Amino acid sequence: VETLCLVNGQRTGLDPTDRGLAYGDGLFETMAAYDGEIRWLDWHLERLEEGCRRLAMPTPERSTIVDEVVSNCPTDGRAVMKLIVTRGLGARGYRPPQTPQLTRVLSVSAWPDYPDAYYHTGIRMQTCALRLAESPLLAGIKHLCRLEQVLAHLELDPKHVQQGLLLDTSGRVIGGTSSNVFIVDGQELITPAITHAGIKGVMRRVVLAAAAEIGVRATERELHLADVLAADELFVTNAVFGIWPVRALDEQNFALGPVTMRLKRHIGGDRVA
Amino acid sequence: VETLCLVNGQRTGLDPTDRGLAYGDGLFETMAAYDGEIRWLDWHLERLEEGCRRLAMPTPERSTIVDEVVSNCPTDGRAVMKLIVTRGLGARGYRPPQTPQLTRVLSVSAWPDYPDAYYHTGIRMQTCALRLAESPLLAGIKHLCRLEQVLAHLELDPKHVQQGLLLDTSGRVIGGTSSNVFIVDGQELITPAITHAGIKGVMRRVVLAAAAEIGVRATERELHLADVLAADELFVTNAVFGIWPVRALDEQNFALGPVTMRLKRHIGGDRVA
Repeated sequence: VETLCLVNGQRTGLDPTDRGLAYGDGLFETMAAYDGEIRWLDWHLERLEEGCRRLAMPTPERSTIVDEVVSNCPTDGRAVMKLIVTRGLGARGYRPPQTPQLTRVLSVSAWPDYPDAYYHTGIRMQTCALRLAESPLLAGIKHLCRLEQVLAHLELDPKHVQQGLLLDTSGRVIGGTSSNVFIVDGQELITPAITHAGIKGVMRRVVLAAAAEIGVRATERELHLADVLAADELFVTNAVFGIWPVRALDEQNFALGPVTMRLKRHIGGDRVA
Repeated sequence: VETLCLVNGQRTGLDPTDRGLAYGDGLFETMAAYDGEIRWLDWHLERLEEGCRRLAMPTPERSTIVDEVVSNCPTDGRAVMKLIVTRGLGARGYRPPQTPQLTRVLSVSAWPDYPDAYYHTGIRMQTCALRLAESPLLAGIKHLCRLEQVLAHLELDPKHVQQGLLLDTSGRVIGGTSSNVFIVDGQELITPAITHAGIKGVMRRVVLAAAAEIGVRATERELHLADVLAADELFVTNAVFGIWPVRALDEQNFALGPVTMRLKRHIGGDRVA
């Protein structure tokens, strides 16, 4: 896969006065492309549009986005496609322009070579010391203000830990450093309600839909660290890597369990791996 | 003043894979230039360097920054100089590169024509409904993740209100939408301690230093909305506009008081105006 980056469809630099740089005033989506198909593209675009509404930005024309993403999707093999949409240019100052002209940045990059073991025996997680700030107005959407995730990654040694577990300042479990988390408690699948911090991942939505399809009861609610440590199964999700079972969180070990396996098989077998 | 924007010293676009855009992974300073002099340049650079340390970024070479800022400062009249420093390029993903090559973006723009009345009779403020998220790791520094300030501005009608007053989720008063706040209670000057949210403004530091010089007792501590509404004097500060007295916050009116006037005169008279 050739690395490619387009700004409003052109191979050019970004205007350095763009509000995406100045204030993190925008949103992004990171998507998995397999042999010319962008997985869950509609759900990525729905979340992007929801983010625009939450930030009081106009929504980009969906057909423009789809045409650009599809026409730049490699036809062979796997790739990661990342789309940024910002509120565009504006005069200096936080106040948004009354009629923003959105900026699109589309980049295509090589598929990361995740070790097979992450899929088949699971990953290791570590609870981060950093606590996510609580901001109900921004919770759920994938906006560009991600310094907390950057700082959380600095706590982790990537040789030993693949995801950090993030709690908010009130002690709610929110998710992984670049993933959502799910626990299985008996026959019930539970994922944190994303009300005060965190992102509602597209893969999270895929898993919740899959659970409904195969008759697994799924709940979104407040979870605490003790709930996660006591879980029968634990896994993390994101739209690029799919589903990774967690084999250890801090000192607690977990078995690769049957509910995780059923969900993985239902969603796409090897394609999720 | 000619508008100018330089990326690493060049009139070029920003690499659209820059981490400043991708994650808000960087810092900025907004400085007032008068007739070729950048006011409080050293304090701006000290805060920038403190921000780099807090974000575990290398600090930029100070002489490079000073040379670039000074050589691009208009020699006549007033201008606003804005410097952004980001963690530069990196592979996709939150994890920072081990040896980041920082990106500098310097822009020079025209001085905003603030009405004289803002200085001489004061501005109107309104308490924002948005509550700032609490993030002790990020409090104080002027990082690029500013969506809360953008959303707060959307609550205000700029024809009637010049600054919003921002509280954090615990109810602490933090500052104005693009300023720090000070109250005078009897003979005491008080400004919120910036421990959980907000930015430690350079003009805030200037005012605290001026208070010490003229023998006004100044305190940084937790303030609540009731403290502000009961104050004898109220004013807001930033490095571009200087000091603006507040004549009304919501339904409460304030007189332009003697401590505010003494501080304004000591700091620079008309130059602060």
